[in-house]
Amino acid sequence: MPETKKRIGILISGRGSNMLALADAVRDGRIPDADIALVISNVADAAGLTKAAARGIAIITLDHRGKTHEQHDQAMAAALREARVDVVCLAGYMRLLSPWFTNEFKGRVLNIHPSLLPAFPGLHGARDALSYGVKFTGCTVHLVDEHLDHGPILKQAVVPVFSNDTEDSLSARILVEEHRIYAEAVAMLLHSDWRIEGRSFK
Amino acid sequence: MPETKKRIGILISGRGSNMLALADAVRDGRIPDADIALVISNVADAAGLTKAAARGIAIITLDHRGKTHEQHDQAMAAALREARVDVVCLAGYMRLLSPWFTNEFKGRVLNIHPSLLPAFPGLHGARDALSYGVKFTGCTVHLVDEHLDHGPILKQAVVPVFSNDTEDSLSARILVEEHRIYAEAVAMLLHSDWRIEGRSFK
Repeated sequence: MPETKKRIGILISGRGSNMLALADAVRDGRIPDADIALVISNVADAAGLTKAAARGIAIITLDHRGKTHEQHDQAMAAALREARVDVVCLAGYMRLLSPWFTNEFKGRVLNIHPSLLPAFPGLHGARDALSYGVKFTGCTVHLVDEHLDHGPILKQAVVPVFSNDTEDSLSARILVEEHRIYAEAVAMLLHSDWRIEGRSFK
Repeated sequence: MPETKKRIGILISGRGSNMLALADAVRDGRIPDADIALVISNVADAAGLTKAAARGIAIITLDHRGKTHEQHDQAMAAALREARVDVVCLAGYMRLLSPWFTNEFKGRVLNIHPSLLPAFPGLHGARDALSYGVKFTGCTVHLVDEHLDHGPILKQAVVPVFSNDTEDSLSARILVEEHRIYAEAVAMLLHSDWRIEGRSFK
């Protein structure tokens, strides 16, 4: 009964390591009863595109250049609707989504961020954690709303910071946890009973 | 050789549970070669005062009312110098320290805060973490500088947030870790080789 499966859309801009982790989780049944329906990249030569295609996942490129922000987001939304996706997962998608888009897919857009939000939002979660001198950091899967790195949190994981860490060594340690909790969060969103109270998933 | 022992001064305003935890750690040798030299409260009927006195610790009350901020801090500094303290530990001291004071005891004033700073600074670390919907929070021992809940971090500990937590249940879980890492941080500051690079203790 393929049509009873949940359908996952993924937005990437680069290597898409979290996209591949979600594909692995679907394959291994850690995200049960689901398919990766579509991977969209706004960058034509994103390394993740060929990797997705090699796994038999449908891919398209939608170049954001020469369009307004909302025109680009409407093109993505049309492709995602055509693919009948139940959830949209950002996996290194390097553009902000317009309020129009997040409202159109309200409660169904997930992002993963390499810090324990609300600490260290923005582009350099691991670097900023190192600079601040924290002893623990981690990663966060959250619903995307109209604010940067801000929506209700589905999952977090904690990672220690060691005194000899570099941005690369810390990012690598965080990435292992990203791959794990992103799959857990998607499975939870698609298949569990949950409700949001205030900002909290219960 | 009592004069070779390190001397700890503690500022409180209330029950002083972290003050008692530090006193326990001195007694048990987890903060080795140290004495609690003095406990100062800015509140005359702070519950912690009688508990400290019952353990034979020197206590004084210095009421902040009727003085300027810096006059009060100068009175505390005079008492702390008289007691020849090597480190000043805030333990539920509910007033900001003046830049004059933090400069006078630069690098020797510690605070403990019930969150994983830089997340959730201010008076309600546990409540704010619950409201935000984080899955992990914790506590932080940091050097006090002229900014609120801001200086370089000595120790942090992580605590899970459960979906049925109240502010009280979460605060209690954090407090156990506060008592542990505050003693570890004081022992480290007094007895270890360390240096600060940027904001990081190494």
